[in-house]
Amino acid sequence: MSDAWLDRLSVNQKTINSCTLPEAVRGCAAAGIPAIGLWREPVHQTGLRTTAALVRAAGLRVSSLCRGGFVTVAEDTAWWASIDDNRRAIDEAAELGAPCLVLVVGGLPSGSRDLRAARARVADALAELAPYAAQRGVRLALEPMHPMYCADRGVLSTLAQAVELAQEFPPDLVGVVVDTFHVWWDPEVDTQIARAGPRIASFQVSDWITPLPADVLLGRGLPGDGHIDFRALHAAVDAAGYAGDVEVEVFNAEVWREEPHTVLRRVAERYRTAVLGGPA
Amino acid sequence: MSDAWLDRLSVNQKTINSCTLPEAVRGCAAAGIPAIGLWREPVHQTGLRTTAALVRAAGLRVSSLCRGGFVTVAEDTAWWASIDDNRRAIDEAAELGAPCLVLVVGGLPSGSRDLRAARARVADALAELAPYAAQRGVRLALEPMHPMYCADRGVLSTLAQAVELAQEFPPDLVGVVVDTFHVWWDPEVDTQIARAGPRIASFQVSDWITPLPADVLLGRGLPGDGHIDFRALHAAVDAAGYAGDVEVEVFNAEVWREEPHTVLRRVAERYRTAVLGGPA
Repeated sequence: MSDAWLDRLSVNQKTINSCTLPEAVRGCAAAGIPAIGLWREPVHQTGLRTTAALVRAAGLRVSSLCRGGFVTVAEDTAWWASIDDNRRAIDEAAELGAPCLVLVVGGLPSGSRDLRAARARVADALAELAPYAAQRGVRLALEPMHPMYCADRGVLSTLAQAVELAQEFPPDLVGVVVDTFHVWWDPEVDTQIARAGPRIASFQVSDWITPLPADVLLGRGLPGDGHIDFRALHAAVDAAGYAGDVEVEVFNAEVWREEPHTVLRRVAERYRTAVLGGPA
Repeated sequence: MSDAWLDRLSVNQKTINSCTLPEAVRGCAAAGIPAIGLWREPVHQTGLRTTAALVRAAGLRVSSLCRGGFVTVAEDTAWWASIDDNRRAIDEAAELGAPCLVLVVGGLPSGSRDLRAARARVADALAELAPYAAQRGVRLALEPMHPMYCADRGVLSTLAQAVELAQEFPPDLVGVVVDTFHVWWDPEVDTQIARAGPRIASFQVSDWITPLPADVLLGRGLPGDGHIDFRALHAAVDAAGYAGDVEVEVFNAEVWREEPHTVLRRVAERYRTAVLGGPA
């Protein structure tokens, strides 16, 4: 790499969603981006071992594997099926050498209004999965999701909640994800980042843009396009001892329509200016 | 009224948004709904004294006046203009006999990413407005907004934050709004409702529906159409000592297209079943 400031940058492959996995790996390497965040579906398409070999050959790190989770279902057979799938995800993370498997825990089960029960299911799933993850040397990373996803994607809504669940386990076995998009609004975000300390397993960045687009799953902006103070959050995770990758993960239909190499250049530029605070 | 279970029901006039204020007042009275939540703009259109007289003549209570606030602007002249407007809103709440003036505090000032500063402006505004409200016998009600509105509508994102700001003042001068739509996801909601206790100035209900519609401001459902456990939240505010109106406030384009008397009947029915837990 030519530029030391790029050392901790990772691009999640979803940011360049039109690329196949091999294209995304080549694109990151060509752009001098040293790490990539992977998703299970494209890994399956490319093949697990092929993916691991591609990433190694390109000289990249895997910053995270997305995602396990979806363990809030009430019904037992479905819940155990989900546990089995999470075990496979743990195996995949081990094979890829990913430092963590990101867990998006799931929303309310269909027809249920019982948040407390759904959240309890997450604790049950962790208890089931943690020993398996320990055997495989994989760290589980609980991702608190923005409260607007509480009903349908993730009943973990705050960093405080995620840290509390994680604290039942050693920090190197169960950590938390600090994703700026999900936690920026939280009046306790600084306190909880400090409290998370060595449990911070992943730092993901994307911006909160307004107005939210029609599909709120695609409502994320490149750093600098929205309302989030990345420098402050970056300083907070650094102060908490996090020294891992800074993963830019942007779900945005407009970004997805652009030429991927242009997007990668812009991601690097925004990382330098909006996240690191370098001159524009 | 024929039915005692209707005693605490209020309908916010926004729920029947196609009605003029006089139509909304007549509609509630005809439906046996004993209270109405008012908004300043239609009150201005009808005239303040005319509105007060209409509501009295119909035998209704005013459950709340929406809304003051929008005090997060950084620039001094604009901030003082906002304070002046809030003083007028306080005068109006007094004239209408509203038990509280709901404060939606405002989002980040244009171009700012400094949430802490914006939140500090809210504390400044309260310090400025509380003595005036005390003179007029009006209670200010801080409304925490769902975190998805943090950037553009309300930097108060949790009940905990609202209670902490309110605690600088006597409970009968500065209270908080518990709006199910805004707070249902909060893992601390029960704790914070209990902590709010005598500060609960208003209890508003609408449901969280999925998927969120394109305009997230119109994303609220009638109780029972979404994911919120109203009985649990109603029990919590009751246990905290709240004995005021239960105000159904639904912003929803589909509901707005329906015939208002039909909507009022359905609101009453949903209040009975989804909120009070009566048989369907």
